[in-house]
Order: sequence, then structure tokens, then C-alpha cells
Amino acid sequence: MKHELKGVLPPMATPFTVDEEVDLAALKANIAQWNATGLSGYLAVGSNGESVYLSEDEQEAVIAATVEAAGEDKFVMAGAGRESSRETIGAIRRAARAGADCVLIVTPCYFKGQMKPANLEAHYLRVAEASTLPVLLYNVPQATGVNMTPDLVARLAPHANIVGVKDSSGNIAQLSEILRLTKDDDFAVFVGNAEVLFSATQLGADGAILAVANVLPQLCVDLREAVLAGDLAQGKALQWAMSRLAALVTGVYGVGGLKATMDMVGYLGGPVRLPLLAPDQAARDVLAAELKKVMGQV
Amino acid sequence: MKHELKGVLPPMATPFTVDEEVDLAALKANIAQWNATGLSGYLAVGSNGESVYLSEDEQEAVIAATVEAAGEDKFVMAGAGRESSRETIGAIRRAARAGADCVLIVTPCYFKGQMKPANLEAHYLRVAEASTLPVLLYNVPQATGVNMTPDLVARLAPHANIVGVKDSSGNIAQLSEILRLTKDDDFAVFVGNAEVLFSATQLGADGAILAVANVLPQLCVDLREAVLAGDLAQGKALQWAMSRLAALVTGVYGVGGLKATMDMVGYLGGPVRLPLLAPDQAARDVLAAELKKVMGQV
Amino acid sequence: MKHELKGVLPPMATPFTVDEEVDLAALKANIAQWNATGLSGYLAVGSNGESVYLSEDEQEAVIAATVEAAGEDKFVMAGAGRESSRETIGAIRRAARAGADCVLIVTPCYFKGQMKPANLEAHYLRVAEASTLPVLLYNVPQATGVNMTPDLVARLAPHANIVGVKDSSGNIAQLSEILRLTKDDDFAVFVGNAEVLFSATQLGADGAILAVANVLPQLCVDLREAVLAGDLAQGKALQWAMSRLAALVTGVYGVGGLKATMDMVGYLGGPVRLPLLAPDQAARDVLAAELKKVMGQV
Amino acid sequence: MKHELKGVLPPMATPFTVDEEVDLAALKANIAQWNATGLSGYLAVGSNGESVYLSEDEQEAVIAATVEAAGEDKFVMAGAGRESSRETIGAIRRAARAGADCVLIVTPCYFKGQMKPANLEAHYLRVAEASTLPVLLYNVPQATGVNMTPDLVARLAPHANIVGVKDSSGNIAQLSEILRLTKDDDFAVFVGNAEVLFSATQLGADGAILAVANVLPQLCVDLREAVLAGDLAQGKALQWAMSRLAALVTGVYGVGGLKATMDMVGYLGGPVRLPLLAPDQAARDVLAAELKKVMGQV
Repeated sequence: MKHELKGVLPPMATPFTVDEEVDLAALKANIAQWNATGLSGYLAVGSNGESVYLSEDEQEAVIAATVEAAGEDKFVMAGAGRESSRETIGAIRRAARAGADCVLIVTPCYFKGQMKPANLEAHYLRVAEASTLPVLLYNVPQATGVNMTPDLVARLAPHANIVGVKDSSGNIAQLSEILRLTKDDDFAVFVGNAEVLFSATQLGADGAILAVANVLPQLCVDLREAVLAGDLAQGKALQWAMSRLAALVTGVYGVGGLKATMDMVGYLGGPVRLPLLAPDQAARDVLAAELKKVMGQV
Repeated sequence: MKHELKGVLPPMATPFTVDEEVDLAALKANIAQWNATGLSGYLAVGSNGESVYLSEDEQEAVIAATVEAAGEDKFVMAGAGRESSRETIGAIRRAARAGADCVLIVTPCYFKGQMKPANLEAHYLRVAEASTLPVLLYNVPQATGVNMTPDLVARLAPHANIVGVKDSSGNIAQLSEILRLTKDDDFAVFVGNAEVLFSATQLGADGAILAVANVLPQLCVDLREAVLAGDLAQGKALQWAMSRLAALVTGVYGVGGLKATMDMVGYLGGPVRLPLLAPDQAARDVLAAELKKVMGQV
Repeated sequence: MKHELKGVLPPMATPFTVDEEVDLAALKANIAQWNATGLSGYLAVGSNGESVYLSEDEQEAVIAATVEAAGEDKFVMAGAGRESSRETIGAIRRAARAGADCVLIVTPCYFKGQMKPANLEAHYLRVAEASTLPVLLYNVPQATGVNMTPDLVARLAPHANIVGVKDSSGNIAQLSEILRLTKDDDFAVFVGNAEVLFSATQLGADGAILAVANVLPQLCVDLREAVLAGDLAQGKALQWAMSRLAALVTGVYGVGGLKATMDMVGYLGGPVRLPLLAPDQAARDVLAAELKKVMGQV
Repeated sequence: MKHELKGVLPPMATPFTVDEEVDLAALKANIAQWNATGLSGYLAVGSNGESVYLSEDEQEAVIAATVEAAGEDKFVMAGAGRESSRETIGAIRRAARAGADCVLIVTPCYFKGQMKPANLEAHYLRVAEASTLPVLLYNVPQATGVNMTPDLVARLAPHANIVGVKDSSGNIAQLSEILRLTKDDDFAVFVGNAEVLFSATQLGADGAILAVANVLPQLCVDLREAVLAGDLAQGKALQWAMSRLAALVTGVYGVGGLKATMDMVGYLGGPVRLPLLAPDQAARDVLAAELKKVMGQV
């Protein structure tokens, strides 16, 4: 499975029905469309999948549906991080049962002040030892308030069952250090911010897990491939075409904005779960206008 | 039950066995000791109870054991906040089944940037509508990265099923505003920081939920009662006696430090769950020295 | 002079003419009015005096005018902090020449990451050694991004020429620790946040330096005296009457809001210097409404 | 002069004698060495020049000495930002008198909460109108706590006397947006973080102002030229060779570390001014070891 750990993945939004029930049929319909693109796999129940809003059973169902619907050439990564090592191991067991190929484990964060490098290292080692699936580290300080340093990533990278990292800090200097320090390991480095996809790919990132890839998967794939093919002008043009939209469907309007934009291009986004709120009309107008601008440029 | 919403509560640490299993017998033994003090109740599965490290079943068991062990004059509050309104409602249902008197609902926070006042307001209203137990709001920005403003608290306070708030911001100006804006509501205001117990009580806070009350429950009760009785000199002396220890068992050494200090005074603290780590010997020495200092002063 | 280091001081706004020139006549007119109140002294060229926007000559002129206009029973403190120890010493020399009684020295902050306790300690010791005027420490982390811990204050307090501190962190737990750790020194502790004046005075603070005291000096004095006289109900009533206005003229609308409110009650506030901007009409309406509310309560 | 606004500049450290006096002879000796490299110019009295620790006269002397010593093919940029528009204009006048070619104006920041886009825009417009020298904007949120958004930069870029920006946020997504939004203006974009030099140059940045260029000027120039020549492998190799050293002489050890490292390679760094402190021996050992590693790779 390890050879597949590259390319562009969408951290799939989880569609809900109007009464906020998980809509597996809609999810599979989205995947059917994505199967026809150059995406290399899917991240089920990641942050953008509103995984923190799903029950354990719902999460397992979403993973299983993804495995079922994914094209043969696509791999399935599943979010399975919890606050404790023990609960994380339980979540991994369920992800494995549902058929995931590997798991993405976010840094614990509730006790921010106590999440020192030694704590994170002990956590990941225990989890990796117990996991039957390959483990990827996940660093997203904007959400967690905890940053995993390149030095810590480098200490964990040699472990046989720790196969990669997703860094969503948006900090290219940090990503560069991670790449430098793990370059001799068999270790996949994913970037989690579409606004720096051009630069991250240029630096040698193996892949990218990008909210905006729910909306414009092929554009993200094309951007990455342009850079890999040495066509930097095209890579930069695609980057500049989509940077603002990428920011709108993440930091600015969040998952509600992402789902609304999916609806605009023919995917099934639908409602969010409370306490998230659907974007208001003004936000939808901004999203629609920016989407139109992107479409006019690519 | 509403009349009981005052006084000092410990956010009880959850004892574990050496293999990190929940130790209900140890919990009940602690409660038996606390029953003999002036504590007015117990908070089960709050932050300091490592609730984020417990399974749903474990949480329910801890609440049930607390209800069973609590003295007749003590009320039981249970932590039941989750990221989504839907999951929160489920957690409240389990807390009710386990016999809790009321629930403490922390602000959702994973999508920090999206947790605007409108989101928090919609969340608490939906939760309060669905809850069979009285609801207390819980604001702890150090852990969540989200702050609930006094204005928002004041908008929620009139709701019949929202009966109070615990503010752990440590910001006395904010606590004062909450007290001012809710003074005409039947609404209980708890402070969550022992270092400001003297000032909070002076301002009119109804009670306090304090990690250090796991260790020195009667000192916290005495401090509060000294202020209520107008003996400000004694109140300040007790405040100054315990402020540093209170900081050590929260921000500095966290739950590991709290449990180690409980062990020093005859409660059953025991191990923490990974990714928390037990305090090292140097930390234990600092805690023991400070504890000795407190004991020499009171 | 040392015995005077207590009571309420306004960090005086510096009036400008319409073409942004320092208006010393207006300043003296304000002081003449304030002389009739229970204020114990004046802070010239502090933060609210827009000192960072004044030239060295202008600062010296403002201090000299304050000294000239101040009533006999009032002492004059002058802001004289600079980024380097060397420049700070120069500023103190000018403040002394202008007749100030003591100086308030803010923590250096440009290189935040390097301003460790050892740096701040070395800075204050060198400054105190060289200063011909008594020195007060000034901690205002909201502006500087640097926090001076109670332990550091306590290490500096015994120095013969370091006579006090102004803590504007707004953190009552920190203020309480400063008071506890310096209680055996001849050391004056001022609080810099009007929203916590009631609590700070209760804890034993010697005085307060409050932006809102530019607008409502006697109310601040009365609040402090009520607490000192043991009339806590009156103290709390005055606190609650003015807390929101105090927040509006500092964090919310800044010096522009402060000056506009001064104009509303008969002091000479006038324009601010760019990059500050005068509050717009909506802000003025909020300020006027809140001011009216305060006036109706006291 | 405008055509020169590209390439690599060191934000020159300001050498002091052992008694902390400005050592213009040492500065000129450094410049004489740098003149032989591919540096395109010099930044006098920037952050790393400890400008916040220099008197106005000292700053003017440093600028004049730089102008005098700079090679004919080098341009001289001078830091001239102050908190107020009025003081900034005065500083620009002195920089012009000293012979600077252009000025770099940092965002005001003391009243962080008030430094909204409208304030910064009004400030820069007034400054640009009054300045006889071309103006570059300077964004360094780590020091100032204020971030200048790409949208604001784009609104200012068309002004005839605003000729560029230095962005030291380290945020490549932000730098990319600045480049995208100003690509049709005659506007020079400098990056201020050596750790992202490879990526910034790839995205189209015109130049870089880098602390580490005080130590290893030619390496920085070579890296930039490798990227411009399309030799990305060499560019990345140089980036990876120096990233850690670049971090050590900025965020980790600050100007003291930078000066100590200059001394190790034959430039005259010397002491820092208090409150900065010279790095201790452990820090020097780390710096020396990292420097040796860099030297072994290039």
C-alpha cells in the first residue's frame, strides 16, 4: 500500500440529509464522480468530513462506504485520532475493520500546555505499535493549538509503522525542514494547504490533502503534475487561479462554505451539523463569484 | 436542584489502575473522604477527570459511581459537552441515565474560526431544548481557544433550562461582567480558577469548581466562607497560602501533577492516561515542597 | 516622594490642536480641573498620552507643563521607557530635567522572543542604577507581547531605586501574586485596568492608573475609597457602573475613543495623531449612550 | 533607482564597541567585504541593525556611513518607520539627508488593537505623500503583532511613491497573494525569511532581505540565482544547507546570535546593546557546529 502514498486526496466532506443524518448514498455519488479524476485516493472522516461531529458508528459507516465506492486505483485513508492513545487505538481498530488502507492521527490537544514533544512522541509510538494499519501523523496547529516540530517528525519517521505525515501548518519553512530531515526515510509527506501546493510540490512533497479538492479535484491534480513535469509557469498559473477560492472554503467560510461550493459544481455537499451554520446569502455570493473567476481562468 | 447550585466543587480526577483502567473503587474512596468536608457537590468527568480520554461507557460509569457515593447533601454535575449539538445531546442523555443532577457543557472548539457567537448561541439553545437536565455553560478558552463573551452568556441566561455558567478564563473583569449582566436572572455563576477565588467570591460568584479542591477541599471551602462572612483578612490569607499550589496542579504540571499531589495527602490520584505523563521527580519535589508550605500556613 | 505613591492617577491624554500640534494650554486646563478632584497625581506621556507618537522634545514639554500645572498635593509620574537601556536612561534624564517625581518604565518588547526574564532583569537593574529618579516597572502585555512575571517583579522589588510597579495585564491572579511576593518590600503596586479596580483594591493594591480616570476621575477615587472604607456594596456598585465605559475607552475604541469621551464631559480631548483615527459617529453614539448610563447611576 | 530594487540585501547588523558605542569603522569594514559579493544593496538601521536601540543621530550616522562605504553597484535602503506618521516623516527626512536611496517603513504597532487596515492605509498614504524618497512597506507580524494583508498591500501598490514591500511573515501563501495582486504594478516584493528563499524566488519575489546574508551573503545570492537560472536541484540543496542556520540567527538566538556568527566567519559583529544579551557558550557552540555543517555542504 505504501507505494500509493502520494498524489492529491480530498478530505471528503460528509454529506448529510436535511435532518442531519449521514447520507451515504450522496457520499458514494460524490466518490463515483471523483473516481473519474486523477485523485489518488480519499481521506474519510478527516476534519473537513466533520468527523468530530460524527458518532463512532457513523464514522465506521463512512469509512466502509468509501472503501466500497472507491475506484480500484484509489487508496483510502481514514482519520482516527482521539485525545488518548487508548481511544485512538480503538478508533484505528474500527477503521481497519471498515477496510481503510491507512490512518491519519491528529495530535491530541485538549491539554495544550501539557502536549510537549515527549508526550506526543510517547503517544505516537504507543499508537503505532498497536495499530494494524500504517499510521500517518497529522499536524494542524490552527485547529489544535499544538505544533509538531520537524525534529519530532524526524524522530518518529524511522518507525516501521509510521509511514508519513500531513502538515497543515501552512508554514513552508516547516514543511521544508520535514522534507529535509526525512528524506532518507521511506516516509510520505503530505501538505494540507492548497494555497501552498505549488511551493510544496516544488520542495518535494509527495502529495496533498486539500479541502478544495472536494470541489476542483482535477485542477489540484493538474497543478501538481505541471510542477512535477517542470512546467512551472502552468503550475503557478493554476495556483494563482485557485488560491483565493481555497482560502474561502477553509479559513474564511469553513466546512459550510466548502459544502455550498460543492453544491455549485455538481457534487452533493448539503447541510452541516450544528454548531456549524450554513453560509448566508452574502457568503454564497462571494463563493459563487470566486468560483466563476476560477472557471474563467482554467 | 437549582438551590444547590453554589459552593465549592472539585472537578474530580478519575483514578486509574496501573494498567490505566478506570478505578471506580478508588473514586468512591475519594468521594467518601470528600463527603466529610464542606464541599457542596462533585463535578464528574470534567476536564480534570480526563474525560476526553474516557470512552462513553467509562464516562457513564464514573457518573453513576459518583451519584452512588455522593453524600446526601451533595449534588452531582457531569461534563457532557461534545463538538456537535447532536453528540452533546446524546452525552446528556447518558449523564441523565447515570443519575447526574445537571450537566456542564463546554464550548465546541475544533473549528475555532467558525465558533462565532451565533454558532455558540444556536448550539446552546438546541442543547438546552433537548436536555432533560439543567444545563450550565462552560467557558475555558485556555483549552478551547474559544471565548464566550459576557454578552452571549447574558443572552442565554434567561432560558429556563440554562441555569448557570462556569467561567475558567481567569479574567476577573469578564467574570464581573457576567455577574453584572445576569444578576436579575436565576443563574448560577461558578469560577473555575482557584487563584482568583477570593476576588470572585467578593464579586458575588455563587460557587467555584477548582482542581485544587481535589487536594485541599476544606481550605477552598473555608476561604469562600471567610469572604462570605466578611472576614476578608482570613480570606486573603487563605488565598495567598494556596495560590501557588493551585497554579502548580493546573497550568504548570496539569492533571499528572494534580494526581501526584492527591496521593501526597491521602487521596487516590494514581496514574494518568497517555499522552499525559506522570510528573518526574523534580516536579514531585516542587509539589511536595509547596504543599508543605501550604500546610504550614493553614 | 515615596509616601505619595498611592491613589488614582490618570494616564493623561495629550491634547493636540487641529493640526496635530501638542496643545499645552489645553493640557494645563485639564489639569486645573483635575486638581480639584481626589486624584493623587498624574502620569505624563504614558501610553494613553500617545507618547509613542511624540518627539523627545514634545515629551519633555508635556512633562514640564504637567509639573507646572499640578496641584501641590499631586505627584507627577512620567513615562520614560525605551527599547534599549541606554535610550531609557536618556529619557529618564530628560524627565528629571522637566521636574518629574518618578518614572514609569515599560518592558522593552521589539525583540519579543529575546525578552526573557534575564534580559528584563538586566535592563531594569542597569536603568535603576543610572536613574536619578525613582523607577516603577510597567507591564502591559496586550501592547508589548511581553509579560513580566511576579517572580521577576519580586526579584527587582528590593532594589532601593525600584519603588513600584504598574501591572496592566488585567490578570488578577498575577496582581495577587505580585502583592503577595512584595508585601515585605517598600514597594507600590498599581493596577492599570479600571475593570478590576474593585478587586485590585480589595487585594491591597496601593493605587491605580486608569484611562477612564481622564473622564471620570472622582468616580474612580470614590470607588477606591469605598473599598478602603469597607463599603463593599458601594465599591461594587461603582465598579459595575463604569466597567463598560472603561472597556470602551481602552480596548474597544482606544485613545480616540478616550479623547472623544473627554470632550463630552468638559475636558479637552481633541484629535489623535495618525495612524490613530478619530472614532466615527457610530462609535461616538455608543460612547455617549454609555456615558449617559454611567451618569444616571452615580 | 527603481530598477535596482531586486536581489539580496543584508539587514546589516550595527557593530558596537565594547562600551556599546556605534562602531562606524567596523560597519564600513563589513561593507567593504560585502561589496565584493553579489549582494545588490544594503539595508541600514533595520530590525537586525538594532535600530530600535539607536538614537536618531546614531541612525543617521549609520545610514551616512553605509552610503559612503557601499559599492557603486549597491543601493542603500534605510529603515525609517516610527509609530506615528509625523515621526516617520521626520525619520525619512533624516534618511534622505544621509543619502539613502529608499526607505523601509514598518507597520506601526503599539496600539495593536487599533491598527486596522484603514489606519495602516491612511498612515502609508500620508507618509508616501510627504516622503522625498521611494517608500517600501514592511510587514513583520512576529515583532509587531500586526499583519498587513495582501489586499491592503494591493491597494497601496499603485501609489507612485510606494515602490515595494518586504514581507517577513514567513507565510508563503500570503507572499504568493501579494505577488499575484501586485503583478501588474511596478512594485518590488522582497521576502524577509531565509528559510523560504527558494520558494519565494520560485514564486517570483524580486528579492530578499535576510539576516543570514550578514553571515553568508554569497550563498544567499547563489541560491537565488540558481532558482532564476532554473537549476532547482542546486537551489534546493543550498536552501537545505542553510535553513537551520538561518533559524538560529533569527528566531532562536536573535541579533546576539547573528553577531556572534558574523564574528566566526570574519565579519565584525561584536556586542549587542542591553536588554539584548550576548549568547552564552552553549549557544555559541550550537552556532559554530551548524556553521561548520553549512560550510561542509556548500
